[in-house]
Amino acid sequence: MKQVATILEFSTRRQGLVEITRHVTDWVAEAGFRQGLLTLFCRHTSASLLIQENAAPEVRADLEAYFARIAPEDPSVYAHDDEGLDDMPAHLRTALTQVQLSIPLIDGRLALGTWQGIYLFEHRRRPHRRTVAAHLLGA
Amino acid sequence: MKQVATILEFSTRRQGLVEITRHVTDWVAEAGFRQGLLTLFCRHTSASLLIQENAAPEVRADLEAYFARIAPEDPSVYAHDDEGLDDMPAHLRTALTQVQLSIPLIDGRLALGTWQGIYLFEHRRRPHRRTVAAHLLGA
Amino acid sequence: MKQVATILEFSTRRQGLVEITRHVTDWVAEAGFRQGLLTLFCRHTSASLLIQENAAPEVRADLEAYFARIAPEDPSVYAHDDEGLDDMPAHLRTALTQVQLSIPLIDGRLALGTWQGIYLFEHRRRPHRRTVAAHLLGA
Repeated sequence: MKQVATILEFSTRRQGLVEITRHVTDWVAEAGFRQGLLTLFCRHTSASLLIQENAAPEVRADLEAYFARIAPEDPSVYAHDDEGLDDMPAHLRTALTQVQLSIPLIDGRLALGTWQGIYLFEHRRRPHRRTVAAHLLGA
Repeated sequence: MKQVATILEFSTRRQGLVEITRHVTDWVAEAGFRQGLLTLFCRHTSASLLIQENAAPEVRADLEAYFARIAPEDPSVYAHDDEGLDDMPAHLRTALTQVQLSIPLIDGRLALGTWQGIYLFEHRRRPHRRTVAAHLLGA
Repeated sequence: MKQVATILEFSTRRQGLVEITRHVTDWVAEAGFRQGLLTLFCRHTSASLLIQENAAPEVRADLEAYFARIAPEDPSVYAHDDEGLDDMPAHLRTALTQVQLSIPLIDGRLALGTWQGIYLFEHRRRPHRRTVAAHLLGA
C-alpha cells in the first residue's frame, strides 16, 4: 500500500457552499489507485466540509438559509466578535457540520452516491483563501 | 498492511435510527485483522450515520424527536420540496449529523465503547434501500 | 506503511471543552512518521470531539453556551432522564458534533491550521474518565 498527501487551495467569494468535487477527484485520479481511502481536512475554524446534493440548487440555498437561522448573527448573545458579527456564527456553523471527511475508493472511483457532491462551506462574509489537507492511501 | 472494501446494503422502513452494528462487525471479522481502521460512508444525502447509545430505547426516540424539532417539516421555509415535505428536512438532518465514520480496530475488535452502537439514520418517511461503502485496512 | 494504536485517557471536571492537542501530538510524535493519517475516536455517547479555535477563550465559552441553548436541559421534552437532566442533552450535543476525527500527517506534522486545536467536549455536569481510541498509520 502507498500514500500521497497534499494541500489543496480554494478561494471563496462569499458565505455559502462551493463545490470542490472535481478538484478532489482530479487529484485522486493522479495516484492511479484501484482501492483506497481519501481523507480531506479543512484547516480552518470558520469554514467546513459537507457532502450534499449536487442536483437541485435550491437545496444549497435552503441549507445556507437554515444554518443562518440556527446559528444567527446576533450581537446580543456572543461574547466573541473580534472579527465582526459573522465571526462567532462561523465557528458555530463549523462545529455543527465538520472539518473532516473520509471517502473510500472502490474500483478506481470515490464511492460517492449518485447525488453526492463534496462542498467547502464558507461561513465568513468576506472572500477567503482556504486550504484543505488531502491524504490518500491505497494501491 | 492490507485493505478490503465493499458496499453494504440496508433496507429502511420509516424515519429513524436502524442499528447496523452487527452487520458491520460481522464484515470486519471476516478480514481477520488484529489492528486497523474501518471507514463507513453513507452514499446518500437524506440518510446519515450516527454512533449512539444502544441501551435505553428512549434515547433513540428522544433523538428522533429532537431532529424533527430542530429541522422541521415546514412548507413555509424551504424552496426545495421536489420529493415532498420531508425532502429538505432530510438534507438538513444529514448535514447536522454526518455521512462518514471511522473506527479504529484494536486487539481484533472495533474500539467502540460499552454503550456505543452504529446506526443508520433514515431521514425520509418512505422505505428506502440504502448503501454504505465500507473500507477496512489493517493487518 | 506501518500502524500503531492506543487508548488515550482523559479526566474531565465539568461540562465544556478540554484541549487535548498536546496529548495527541506527543503520541503522534513517538511514531516518528513523516506522512500518515491519525484517527481519534471518542468511546462515549455523552462526550465528543471538536476542532475549534485555540486562541480567543471567548470562542469556547460562546460554543458551550450555544450548545446549552440548542440542546437544553428541559425535563418537559425528553423521555430519557435515567442519569439526570443533563443525560439526554449530552446525547444530543454528541450527535450534533461528532465522536471521530481524522487528521492527515504531512512533513512530520499533523496538518492542523494555525488556529485549530483538538478538543474533548464533555457534555455531562459531573467529572468523568473518558477514553479516546487513537490510530496512526504512516511511514
